[in-house]
Amino acid sequence: MAYLDVIIVLALAQFIFLGVKVGSARGQFGVAAPATTGNPAFERVFRVHQNTLEQLIVFIPACYGFFHYWKDPEWLILIPGIVFIIGRFMYSSSYSKDAAKRGPGFILSILSNIFLILGTFIGALKSLAMG
Amino acid sequence: MAYLDVIIVLALAQFIFLGVKVGSARGQFGVAAPATTGNPAFERVFRVHQNTLEQLIVFIPACYGFFHYWKDPEWLILIPGIVFIIGRFMYSSSYSKDAAKRGPGFILSILSNIFLILGTFIGALKSLAMG
Amino acid sequence: MAYLDVIIVLALAQFIFLGVKVGSARGQFGVAAPATTGNPAFERVFRVHQNTLEQLIVFIPACYGFFHYWKDPEWLILIPGIVFIIGRFMYSSSYSKDAAKRGPGFILSILSNIFLILGTFIGALKSLAMG
Repeated sequence: MAYLDVIIVLALAQFIFLGVKVGSARGQFGVAAPATTGNPAFERVFRVHQNTLEQLIVFIPACYGFFHYWKDPEWLILIPGIVFIIGRFMYSSSYSKDAAKRGPGFILSILSNIFLILGTFIGALKSLAMG
Repeated sequence: MAYLDVIIVLALAQFIFLGVKVGSARGQFGVAAPATTGNPAFERVFRVHQNTLEQLIVFIPACYGFFHYWKDPEWLILIPGIVFIIGRFMYSSSYSKDAAKRGPGFILSILSNIFLILGTFIGALKSLAMG
Repeated sequence: MAYLDVIIVLALAQFIFLGVKVGSARGQFGVAAPATTGNPAFERVFRVHQNTLEQLIVFIPACYGFFHYWKDPEWLILIPGIVFIIGRFMYSSSYSKDAAKRGPGFILSILSNIFLILGTFIGALKSLAMG
């Protein structure tokens, strides 16, 4: 489980870090809680965090599922895991500046998610077929 | 694990699909990122996706917990799993047209979630009672 | 798994309860779906639910990871688990009244999350170091 857990921990720490950035953006752009709108620069930082949440709800169970079926070698999970995390950093850094540039980072992490759920699906079907 | 993983994969694929619909609704109703408000038709599609996220954070761990205690037969997890997914499709198709009609699909998936967490709770308490 | 599952079930039940409060706040403050803005008192109740979602995406996998490495005694998971749940009740009760008072409950649950992910990280690294 150790490689899987390292990836999960890094992705969760990144998510907490992106949440801290939302907190600072509240001060920087003058958007007091509970508001989440009113300043486009704040909204971009806020949407980075929210979109990462939408990606994590897929990424985390898909990592567990993938790892269950493809653990030879165990470090294989590091590849989609690191691609996901790099994609999220790209997404954060580009989207915070300009919403039009958020594509590449988004695509990197969604491709990693699709790879993980396809791997889980194929693994589960093979396991059912072999009884 | 295979039946459990098939249900998880289908629910996650459905969530990605509902996210793709938010992306197309941005173009269709002229709501550019980072905005998430401004057009009620867009907001309905957006809320379907967000509410499904709020349901998945319960559904996924509750599926794992339920499956851990109730795996005789293993395919039992398919019943609450399929009910949840059907509920989410009903929710999406009705809410996208009219917010007032979102009730039945919501109820179907929340009942599935309550069934899964009650099953997990009962299984865990039985396991603690038997030491 | 039983102590872990009891904590997960309680945290999920609390999240459903906070969602029910959002539903009643829609009626009470006159904010009809799909809107999520327009009344600060509604927005505070709505943000409590959303922020709890942002905390749960970390809490749940971090509980699984922590429990995997630190299960002697098995009930150890109850400590960060109960601290998290108490933190969320404090957050809900204070934030619903006044956004400026949301700090202490937030800090309690984020500290619990940081403790859980650090515990998972240390457990995973020890496991990798010992081969």
